[in-house]
Amino acid sequence: MSTEDRVRLARIALGCLVEPGRKDVFELVAMDGPEAALNRLCAGDAAASEAVQSRLAGEDPWNLARRQLAITERVGARVLTPEDDEWPGVRLDDLARISRPTLSGGTAIDRDTFPPHCLWVRGALPLGTTVARSVAVVGARASTPYGDHVAAELSYGLARKGYAVVSGGAFGIDAAAHRGALAAGGPTIAVLACGVDRAYPLGHAGLLEQIAETGLVLSEWPAGSEPLRFRFLIRNRVIAALTQGTVMVEAAARSGSRQTLHRALQLGRAAMAVPGQVTSATSVGCHEELRKPEVLPVANIAHVLEEVGRIGADLAPPVLGPERPEDQLDEVEQRLMDAVPAHRPMLCGDIARIAGIPVRVALAKLPALVTRGLLEERGGAYRLPAARAGRR
Amino acid sequence: MSTEDRVRLARIALGCLVEPGRKDVFELVAMDGPEAALNRLCAGDAAASEAVQSRLAGEDPWNLARRQLAITERVGARVLTPEDDEWPGVRLDDLARISRPTLSGGTAIDRDTFPPHCLWVRGALPLGTTVARSVAVVGARASTPYGDHVAAELSYGLARKGYAVVSGGAFGIDAAAHRGALAAGGPTIAVLACGVDRAYPLGHAGLLEQIAETGLVLSEWPAGSEPLRFRFLIRNRVIAALTQGTVMVEAAARSGSRQTLHRALQLGRAAMAVPGQVTSATSVGCHEELRKPEVLPVANIAHVLEEVGRIGADLAPPVLGPERPEDQLDEVEQRLMDAVPAHRPMLCGDIARIAGIPVRVALAKLPALVTRGLLEERGGAYRLPAARAGRR
Repeated sequence: MSTEDRVRLARIALGCLVEPGRKDVFELVAMDGPEAALNRLCAGDAAASEAVQSRLAGEDPWNLARRQLAITERVGARVLTPEDDEWPGVRLDDLARISRPTLSGGTAIDRDTFPPHCLWVRGALPLGTTVARSVAVVGARASTPYGDHVAAELSYGLARKGYAVVSGGAFGIDAAAHRGALAAGGPTIAVLACGVDRAYPLGHAGLLEQIAETGLVLSEWPAGSEPLRFRFLIRNRVIAALTQGTVMVEAAARSGSRQTLHRALQLGRAAMAVPGQVTSATSVGCHEELRKPEVLPVANIAHVLEEVGRIGADLAPPVLGPERPEDQLDEVEQRLMDAVPAHRPMLCGDIARIAGIPVRVALAKLPALVTRGLLEERGGAYRLPAARAGRR
Repeated sequence: MSTEDRVRLARIALGCLVEPGRKDVFELVAMDGPEAALNRLCAGDAAASEAVQSRLAGEDPWNLARRQLAITERVGARVLTPEDDEWPGVRLDDLARISRPTLSGGTAIDRDTFPPHCLWVRGALPLGTTVARSVAVVGARASTPYGDHVAAELSYGLARKGYAVVSGGAFGIDAAAHRGALAAGGPTIAVLACGVDRAYPLGHAGLLEQIAETGLVLSEWPAGSEPLRFRFLIRNRVIAALTQGTVMVEAAARSGSRQTLHRALQLGRAAMAVPGQVTSATSVGCHEELRKPEVLPVANIAHVLEEVGRIGADLAPPVLGPERPEDQLDEVEQRLMDAVPAHRPMLCGDIARIAGIPVRVALAKLPALVTRGLLEERGGAYRLPAARAGRR
């Protein structure tokens, strides 16, 4: 067996033997590598060993990994590990940075936020490039027709603009989001809290099939895994991490989707919520989140694109093109630039008059625009550089 | 005629002869006093003189003021000037600070934001103390049942908490706000863009009567003045200035109430907007405003009170009591303080354990709390100072 094969099998075994996200296991793997970490865990030499051994039940871990690989193949899925080209490390690695130490008041959920060891995937698209432009659309299972409508509209619009819509495959807002993206013919990704071969919820068997055909169904848990209650909260961090931003469409006061939004915030992704009527219980969670200055209200697709584009420019591959010098202009500078005609020079006084800016201010601002290469000056007259004039 | 009488009559004449808010007239009055300013304006010696003389039409300005006083009395109103005890100078004076110079792109509305020369008032309550605790509730004339419901609920709640509800007396949200406050038996104030003797809109003749009976109807324009279109935007700055904060309940994209909210922002007052369905045209203005980080979404009366209280602590007579040292505590410090029992000293390790804070952190934080007078320390044990313990 090659070293690559052994690393891969070790990661699969880890994915099967420990719940995802654990800080101690992640640090063990980071320090010793997947193989040695697996061996230590199985040898009873680590904090998680007891849990690992109880799951292993005497089986050889390498054997278990091979058996899981065979099952994965049989259900028409594949396993991705960080060694794969399509592994979205640029996104998932951020999960190693948001862990909060657990005080007696905290919970393991806030400590064990680390990246998955591997991902089980159904669907032909390469994961990494698919999520490069992606937005999570999440919300209440017990949604209203209003929420379903907005989730479908936003997701349709995002898909039309070339964004993959990521959600959790649940009833309500999740389903409306997936269906909106499917209706636009765009890729959509369902991130499950159970094996990718499980139809959960059962009523979504057809929807999940359809998603796998044109998009991706993925999970941190091996094929066959149960949708245990606590796994949904663990799973949410992956929805937030994979995407450039999360839109919460409807959420009651106590809603799991609020946690997804918190993860997006912690990860420095765009965190957005859709307003609704303040008399609607399914919008209470949205309005509470919107009271945080860092959560932006989004009322339409343009709002979402603006926010995702902004964050994208900082943290992700550029989405709206590379930053240009004129992106840095203040309002007055922008007005001065707009006043300069495309193909002839103009004197400062005329530029000021057209821009509606005092000449004194124009006199102070225009030379700086020359220094920054945005204008050329000759004999007191300003003009656009040839390259820039051509863009008008 | 006493000096006081002459100042008062001069201000009334100014209120009759120039549109409110003008920067040049305000500065003339500030420099020369009301009498001399009036004389200069009437003598043709100022920028506003032409307009003044055309309104004066040859009449003696002092005569005009006396005539207006008689009219005011006849319609059951009174005139307030800055010399009156009930003049809310602490609020209105802020209007002298938000004027923006007019570029060719700007409008006089943004330059001429200065305080009124006088106010015409109907109703028995003293204006100054009535607006000391007050909130503006404004919004679309073409409101929906949802908006009317929320405006009435919020205003009812505010009135029950002892806040005067200030609005513009218009159809729609304004009317719902006034009626909500009236239903709670609380004072409400209608700030009109015409004379206080005018029933405008006509359909609100009864409502305005009712407001004058238990609250106040007020205006910067003399009795008999027409509700000219441009006066509504001039008037809005007074609604924003009189109150601790402005709540915009429903507003289409182009709505005058957005300008009231902008004034509140410029004045450093709490600026709040009520979310609604993103599919509702009458909430578009609210959602656009909510995209500004300084505009807070409010979904219920508690949200409004929280925001008004916060601003109140800064700019207005304290509403939620004076600021206390413990208001400055961070989360960890608060937890440590909470863990210290009321009437006996406790060791650092026990405080840390109860608070669920690492001992290392508690060791670093507790001495600083002693320095700030929040705790006392003796022999490594911490206790509350006697005064503080009594408050538990």
